[in-house]
Amino acid sequence: MTRERLYLYDTTLRDGQQTQGVQFSTLEKRQIAAALDALGVDYIEGGWPGANPTDSEFFANPPQTRATMTAFGMTKRVGRSAENDDVLAMVLDAATPAVCLVGKTHDFHVKTALGVTLDENLAAIRASVAHLVAKGREALLDAEHFFDGYKANPGYALSCLRAALDEGARWVVLCDTNGGTLPAEIGRITAEVVAAGIPGDHLGIHCHDDTGNAVAGSLAAIDAGARQLQGTLNGLGERCGNANLTTLIPTLLLKPPYAGRFETGVTPQALQGILRTSRMLDDILNRVPRRAAAYVGASAFAHKAGLHASAILKDPTTYEHIDPALVGNARIIPMSNQAGQSNLRARLAAAGIAVEPGDPRLGRILDVVKAREDQGYAYDGAQASFELMARAELGLLPAFFEVKRYRVTVERRKNKYDRMVSLSEAVVVVKIGGQKTLSVSESMDSAGSDRGPVNALAKALAKDLGPYQACIDDMKLVDFKVRVTQGGTDAVTRVIIDSEDSQGRRWSTVGVSPNIVDASFEALLDAMLWKLVRDGVQPA
Amino acid sequence: MTRERLYLYDTTLRDGQQTQGVQFSTLEKRQIAAALDALGVDYIEGGWPGANPTDSEFFANPPQTRATMTAFGMTKRVGRSAENDDVLAMVLDAATPAVCLVGKTHDFHVKTALGVTLDENLAAIRASVAHLVAKGREALLDAEHFFDGYKANPGYALSCLRAALDEGARWVVLCDTNGGTLPAEIGRITAEVVAAGIPGDHLGIHCHDDTGNAVAGSLAAIDAGARQLQGTLNGLGERCGNANLTTLIPTLLLKPPYAGRFETGVTPQALQGILRTSRMLDDILNRVPRRAAAYVGASAFAHKAGLHASAILKDPTTYEHIDPALVGNARIIPMSNQAGQSNLRARLAAAGIAVEPGDPRLGRILDVVKAREDQGYAYDGAQASFELMARAELGLLPAFFEVKRYRVTVERRKNKYDRMVSLSEAVVVVKIGGQKTLSVSESMDSAGSDRGPVNALAKALAKDLGPYQACIDDMKLVDFKVRVTQGGTDAVTRVIIDSEDSQGRRWSTVGVSPNIVDASFEALLDAMLWKLVRDGVQPA
Repeated sequence: MTRERLYLYDTTLRDGQQTQGVQFSTLEKRQIAAALDALGVDYIEGGWPGANPTDSEFFANPPQTRATMTAFGMTKRVGRSAENDDVLAMVLDAATPAVCLVGKTHDFHVKTALGVTLDENLAAIRASVAHLVAKGREALLDAEHFFDGYKANPGYALSCLRAALDEGARWVVLCDTNGGTLPAEIGRITAEVVAAGIPGDHLGIHCHDDTGNAVAGSLAAIDAGARQLQGTLNGLGERCGNANLTTLIPTLLLKPPYAGRFETGVTPQALQGILRTSRMLDDILNRVPRRAAAYVGASAFAHKAGLHASAILKDPTTYEHIDPALVGNARIIPMSNQAGQSNLRARLAAAGIAVEPGDPRLGRILDVVKAREDQGYAYDGAQASFELMARAELGLLPAFFEVKRYRVTVERRKNKYDRMVSLSEAVVVVKIGGQKTLSVSESMDSAGSDRGPVNALAKALAKDLGPYQACIDDMKLVDFKVRVTQGGTDAVTRVIIDSEDSQGRRWSTVGVSPNIVDASFEALLDAMLWKLVRDGVQPA
Repeated sequence: MTRERLYLYDTTLRDGQQTQGVQFSTLEKRQIAAALDALGVDYIEGGWPGANPTDSEFFANPPQTRATMTAFGMTKRVGRSAENDDVLAMVLDAATPAVCLVGKTHDFHVKTALGVTLDENLAAIRASVAHLVAKGREALLDAEHFFDGYKANPGYALSCLRAALDEGARWVVLCDTNGGTLPAEIGRITAEVVAAGIPGDHLGIHCHDDTGNAVAGSLAAIDAGARQLQGTLNGLGERCGNANLTTLIPTLLLKPPYAGRFETGVTPQALQGILRTSRMLDDILNRVPRRAAAYVGASAFAHKAGLHASAILKDPTTYEHIDPALVGNARIIPMSNQAGQSNLRARLAAAGIAVEPGDPRLGRILDVVKAREDQGYAYDGAQASFELMARAELGLLPAFFEVKRYRVTVERRKNKYDRMVSLSEAVVVVKIGGQKTLSVSESMDSAGSDRGPVNALAKALAKDLGPYQACIDDMKLVDFKVRVTQGGTDAVTRVIIDSEDSQGRRWSTVGVSPNIVDASFEALLDAMLWKLVRDGVQPA
């Protein structure tokens, strides 16, 4: 059976860079291009040569990719020839195998934004595409505002597409530039374009998410016959972003009616890497990954409702539309006060603790969870603390050490240079196997700036732990989240700490108190205890 | 012209609470319910009475709303009567005017998850709905896994809907529980359901975002005739979340073919408040608002591409699909210094500070904003600190007092009853008009529990302010938000403090430092300064 070819065109490096606050370095562009190539997209739009120094530098030394490297630009300006248009010349100078030029197809824009006649614009499209083809490049026309243009003047909008194809453009891409066209209309208009004689295998779709429909609009165009899909990783892009390829690729490969219908460059193995690719982009942008993202979000397969969790245990297909492993993701059954005993058993099993159904201790643990959550604890974001609490209830938590007392001081005053500076100092007294130890630390980083009381406490606590030292030295605090929440009738502070060790494990612990230092200390202590338990360290 | 009625059903408080990491307090539930009521939704699903203490407490004393308050539950279990089902009884005990019960409609789930016969399940639906109706409640059936069920066994799935309607259910809601059905299929199946005789004005739609299509799926069902739309604020909800009402409401009110077609409870005024409602929920959850969110995101009308920005200046409709003011949002042209200055002048004018266009100090203030934001400050959420910073640059900030130094200590140890207790103590040295004052406070609330170092500092700082005392005594700290963020290359802590005075004014201030105590102190100090400035107090 031959399958139809569907082409994936990524514009993370061009439209994605138009996201407010996003500015890739040349090195980051190379990293992202390599990841896109590994994922298996067909085209990588690298930027607009000449538009800014980074894009020019990227194209001066482009990475070697299997995907077709594409430069973006605009059709020649009216009043000069394609050969003499300096903006177009810079795009061609990038020497990419493919070039995509944005051209106007909406009569209102031709007149208002460009201030030229409809015929002049049409001639500019023709001459620009012909010039690309004459230079041996694969030519693409990005038909700007196509849907609005088609609604205003269908004949003119279509004539722009035909002009490009007549001159040898490989693709004409229907662009919903301002993101305002709803999926049903995108589907209808794309079908009319195909019916008007524009072949689907020369037709692309480029959607924006201004109504939250970029993914659905893209699917509607594919349903109507378009065979090139443009989008970005994580839906990056101007305003609300572009169609999210991190969502669309799994849908096209895994979901009926698409699964098995199209041939793409993405293998099942590469699909399993899509979560990692999504995280890599967030890392580059220093963004917190969106937990609720389709397929790749940390919560995408998290089953919090008790009814759902119990059915999942019987058969995962009851509440999962795909197997999370296919996109590199994993199932999570969080603890919360909505959870029932079956959630709890599944969660304990995941931590390596087997408890029989009906064991009365399950009920006791649930009671503790409820009571703690009423105090302001949140265990579904702090699995490690949950596990420690359950172990304590089950009698499975060794007594490693006892913190007898601590004291932390923050002092802010002028230094000898008459500048205000802070200094935090902590003393912790710990008893390990009958032996009492006092440790003191201050909180100064290598740049000489004070990191505050929690850092000082963490350093003092971890300073002298005798038999546990090697284990504890192998962990570090990687994130620290604070929120003020309700505990009973009063506001309390909830601190969640994420820790990591050299094995790449990452775990989260929680502490709650009206006093932020106490809450932090509780979460710190849990982080250490979890590490000792999981490493199988014997208590002194 | 009569318009068709479209009903909006919000489940932020129930399905939204099933978001991983989300646990509303009773007070927060009341706040959200009030905001939903002001927005104009028709139904507010408040939770599942009996499922957890918070939901039970919420329903024990429900807020008065114009919207129909709805309790969620499940159909009675097989093997007991509706009257004797304790789970159902707790739902009815909440005494809400409407009750929505989830019931199975997918044969596979009836057999696998419930382990009962298809007829037993049908009888349970009938008996449960009849019981609600007999008790005088408006009854809704949440038809779980309806689309998967319809594909597997259309006759059975439809018979479940008919059973509920026959017994007097006001609505049957087609639920795409695992979020796996694509919009085209949702549209087709909903149309078939209507064609099979289920009236559209008794038909609801409940979508999840597991393929990034919850909004589009909801629209497809409305296109096919469904007249109740279920969703949540900001798309909160189990796994990837529910259909986002913050996106769907503007689309249904503003975008063709929907604009003007439906009557809903949302007025144009209320629509302008939807951005604020969205932010309020993020505030409650201490989440960073999604910049790229459709309609309400901070970037939703940000025009970064140079071509777009210049066209926007000629005519905003060139790159905006709606007027941002209609949803309470505003256009941003990030790269334009000119736009920056006019924005800035507008913001200063709002604070009662008039500056002439072209004043060179405007450029300096913009430079300071940019430098501070690079350090981790966020002035969008801290208007009072922004105003103080601008006043300082403009030479309009009096020197009220100077903090010479402070010291705060947190000590945790056993008390005489052998219980671990904490004590925070702060010393602050302030100079007012040449006069130096030392103040000391500890942080103990009336219940004898320690509120931590920031509270101790606030008390010490406010203790002895001489000529300013009356003014400062008239303010209190009402909220405290902490976020770890990036400042230059290192993580820093950003603290935002909300304060309130007896005139009902509420203002927000920000502090940033690697040391959480310093960051809090900076925000505290700004809060006091703003109050002194706004009250027109003369410096000593």
